[in-house]
Amino acid sequence: MVNSADTLAKLFRIDRECRHLEHALAALQWDQETNLPPKGVEDRSEQLAMLEGISHERLIAGETGRLLESLESTSENPRGDEGLPDIDRDFLRVLRRKYDKAVKLPADFVTAAARAEGLSQAAWSQARKNNDFASFLPHLETMIEFSRKKAEYWGFGGQNGDRAALYDGLLDIYEPGMPAPEIDTVFLPLRDRLVTLLKKIKLCPPPDTSFLSQPFDAERQARLNRRLMDYLGFDRRRGRLDISAHPFTTTLGSDDVRITTRYFQNNLLSGVFSVIHESGHAFYEMGFPPELRGTSLADGASMAFHESQSRFWENVIGRSRPFWEGFFPILKDGFPDQLKAVDSETFYRAVNLVKPANIRVDADEVSYALHIILRFELEKRLISGELSAEKLPEVWRQYTQEYLGLESDTDADGALQDVHWSQGSFGYFPSYALGNLYGLQIRKAILKDIPDFESHVARGDFGAIRAWLGDHVYRWGCRLAPAELLFKITGEKLSVIPFLEYIEAKYTELYGL
Amino acid sequence: MVNSADTLAKLFRIDRECRHLEHALAALQWDQETNLPPKGVEDRSEQLAMLEGISHERLIAGETGRLLESLESTSENPRGDEGLPDIDRDFLRVLRRKYDKAVKLPADFVTAAARAEGLSQAAWSQARKNNDFASFLPHLETMIEFSRKKAEYWGFGGQNGDRAALYDGLLDIYEPGMPAPEIDTVFLPLRDRLVTLLKKIKLCPPPDTSFLSQPFDAERQARLNRRLMDYLGFDRRRGRLDISAHPFTTTLGSDDVRITTRYFQNNLLSGVFSVIHESGHAFYEMGFPPELRGTSLADGASMAFHESQSRFWENVIGRSRPFWEGFFPILKDGFPDQLKAVDSETFYRAVNLVKPANIRVDADEVSYALHIILRFELEKRLISGELSAEKLPEVWRQYTQEYLGLESDTDADGALQDVHWSQGSFGYFPSYALGNLYGLQIRKAILKDIPDFESHVARGDFGAIRAWLGDHVYRWGCRLAPAELLFKITGEKLSVIPFLEYIEAKYTELYGL
Repeated sequence: MVNSADTLAKLFRIDRECRHLEHALAALQWDQETNLPPKGVEDRSEQLAMLEGISHERLIAGETGRLLESLESTSENPRGDEGLPDIDRDFLRVLRRKYDKAVKLPADFVTAAARAEGLSQAAWSQARKNNDFASFLPHLETMIEFSRKKAEYWGFGGQNGDRAALYDGLLDIYEPGMPAPEIDTVFLPLRDRLVTLLKKIKLCPPPDTSFLSQPFDAERQARLNRRLMDYLGFDRRRGRLDISAHPFTTTLGSDDVRITTRYFQNNLLSGVFSVIHESGHAFYEMGFPPELRGTSLADGASMAFHESQSRFWENVIGRSRPFWEGFFPILKDGFPDQLKAVDSETFYRAVNLVKPANIRVDADEVSYALHIILRFELEKRLISGELSAEKLPEVWRQYTQEYLGLESDTDADGALQDVHWSQGSFGYFPSYALGNLYGLQIRKAILKDIPDFESHVARGDFGAIRAWLGDHVYRWGCRLAPAELLFKITGEKLSVIPFLEYIEAKYTELYGL
Repeated sequence: MVNSADTLAKLFRIDRECRHLEHALAALQWDQETNLPPKGVEDRSEQLAMLEGISHERLIAGETGRLLESLESTSENPRGDEGLPDIDRDFLRVLRRKYDKAVKLPADFVTAAARAEGLSQAAWSQARKNNDFASFLPHLETMIEFSRKKAEYWGFGGQNGDRAALYDGLLDIYEPGMPAPEIDTVFLPLRDRLVTLLKKIKLCPPPDTSFLSQPFDAERQARLNRRLMDYLGFDRRRGRLDISAHPFTTTLGSDDVRITTRYFQNNLLSGVFSVIHESGHAFYEMGFPPELRGTSLADGASMAFHESQSRFWENVIGRSRPFWEGFFPILKDGFPDQLKAVDSETFYRAVNLVKPANIRVDADEVSYALHIILRFELEKRLISGELSAEKLPEVWRQYTQEYLGLESDTDADGALQDVHWSQGSFGYFPSYALGNLYGLQIRKAILKDIPDFESHVARGDFGAIRAWLGDHVYRWGCRLAPAELLFKITGEKLSVIPFLEYIEAKYTELYGL
């Protein structure tokens, strides 16, 4: 007879220790991206590796598995979690998932993979610089092999090699319970409709963006973006904004969520939209309810759910007409000389310029998903073996032509453009586009409850919107699987329709299609 | 038969892990003082407590003691470390010391002490604010009791209560092998000569400092102080300067040493001298040779040795006439309006104003040691029991009158002014004044090797001086006990003479005594 309250308390304690270590790691990583003196890198890497090792050890320590088993309903223990409150059952499921992901990979495999990833990323970095795919090829092949192996350890695919199912195992890291065939059902129509929309837009004259080609002083941008954070309602007692080479959001504690951005003198929009995007991530992280605080349940439901929040703020709010009606006067106050001849409508149109280009991270709202679908198609086939790594640059060019109507100039800006595959992160890309879809399904649900959504946004009054997201999205943390959470929030299953309706209506109006 | 190379490698590995954890802790603490969002404090405390626990666990893990014993020369193993190179013997001794300090305190004592210190510090903070010594008294008594107990655990004093020797045990934390009677031999003459000097200076007219009572913009101060760092030769690829409530130096890795300062609009000197002082600490931390890198030997020889370095730069260099001949033009360039009517000689005289006051941290070079000796006399007697905690404020006032010729206005600026005792840090204060003495003995040694020391300083060329400190001080890390290191550097035992000669000559000239 186990004392379940006692067992549960032990598991919560183990979990809490791991969370503290994860947050300490996040603090060291944040510091590395924002503050670390150049020569401090070597020691910092060793510190990180060491803390990661300790965190891993604590999680898979002998006790954890035994404690979990004693509380779970299994064939030997069919009423294990009976009588436990839902939140505790959710906790057990989430901790089990974490435990399994950690414990099922043999230690020597983890070490070998980490070493190979280090070499691969270094090789990628050089290869991209030299536009030399051939030098990266053997590393890419190794990364594919390690990824397949990893999925196998986690129980996907099976020995006899259902390699298509191996990719599902990689997707499962980022989007639990969302295999490739399910993603296909939304990505295929999405691709076709976006390709069509893009072709129409290309025939239209672009909006005026000439006023963006002026110098915008970086220190003034920094001041402006702090005003923007405050405008959005970012609680700076619980977080902060800093500068890093690539914008990101990270959580160092329940009340310590930090975002970063970057400032280019010749690109005002980059800093602004990064701040809005990362604030969306941060609101999610800051919004978990007290009962999840400090536990593994205080986390986004999935990578795509996190992206749904950042993209909701960046695109649905930040690229909307009412947003710029409200915020443009403040922006103009920050840059009176540069913007004296511009009005909010002109600015709104400029930030929604559609211009397909080779680089994903610079893509507009219409092209973006096409970059993602391209990568999804290719990585799925790389893992299944349908596509050999060697052929990647060629097929990349072919798809880029097909989806975006572009010639890829170079492999550096083609198959070598993203860091993800060099780190073995296959299965990550779909989250970005799924996030857009979730976000627009969520918008449809908000509009039912807050019909004057747009006037809230125009007033710069985001309280009701954030409260709604808190009640419907944030409150669940990662208690539910993404599909389940999406249904709970929207009453609907994953669907491409809300996104397509939104984007077609918006750009039809903007470009007068 | 033990394989000593193997055993040693194991000990180095344990040590390296502990160092990484200490550096990770330093990173989190640095972040807390410079960046932490206000509400993040609670989680951060838990993260720190947890990492401290892990670090402690790793150090005292069963293996460490056994491995140490097998390599040490003891009565059972008289030739244990025979044949080992000196550096490895030094390593074993330093690790043994760390191990003993950690392992000899029972876990429940450590927990109880940590809790009592937390309460005590909070009570002190309130008591100081309200000028209410009585409310702090019970906590002070508890801190004294815990400190005595701690010294006992470390083997000082003995059961039958040689309480004077207990204080030696506390001194030993900061200044290994330097008991109170030895400190007495320098502090007593120091006190008498400084009291006499101070009385003479008080009769003289003070230098002109009126130009310091102007506003000095904080952002301009920040720019100026970055120039000052560069001027001193601080390698910013291996460290950085930030802002915190109290200036400090901390080491996050062999190539990551960070200093902080603070800027007051009405006090230009505070920021400047903090930067020079902390740079002195940082040069020490950055200067340990490669063979000590990453080990416990890469540390200051003692608290006073660290202070000898910071105070050498702050006072011997930073408050010297040649320094201001060189740096004043740069300072003037930073604040042309405020300093247009001032020349370097006037500025030099102003930074050496002697004006006894109640607050230690604001004290001038002549009064400073008197503040320290006062605290040394009192804490020694608090620990021995000669002085009851209740009587502290009264005796504090009496000593302040005797040493500094001042009436203490309040306990807040008297017996409650420093945080140290509220944290149980008895035995720490003497380091500050010992540091001054070491520093001036070191100056005497440098002058033999670099007779044109002053012209180096006047040129702002600190390369030869830093190289000398590297060869004679930094290279040893904490391989030698402070007294041994001092003798190695200067060929002399601890002496008050170089300091007294320096300070009497300097202020006789400045004040025309």
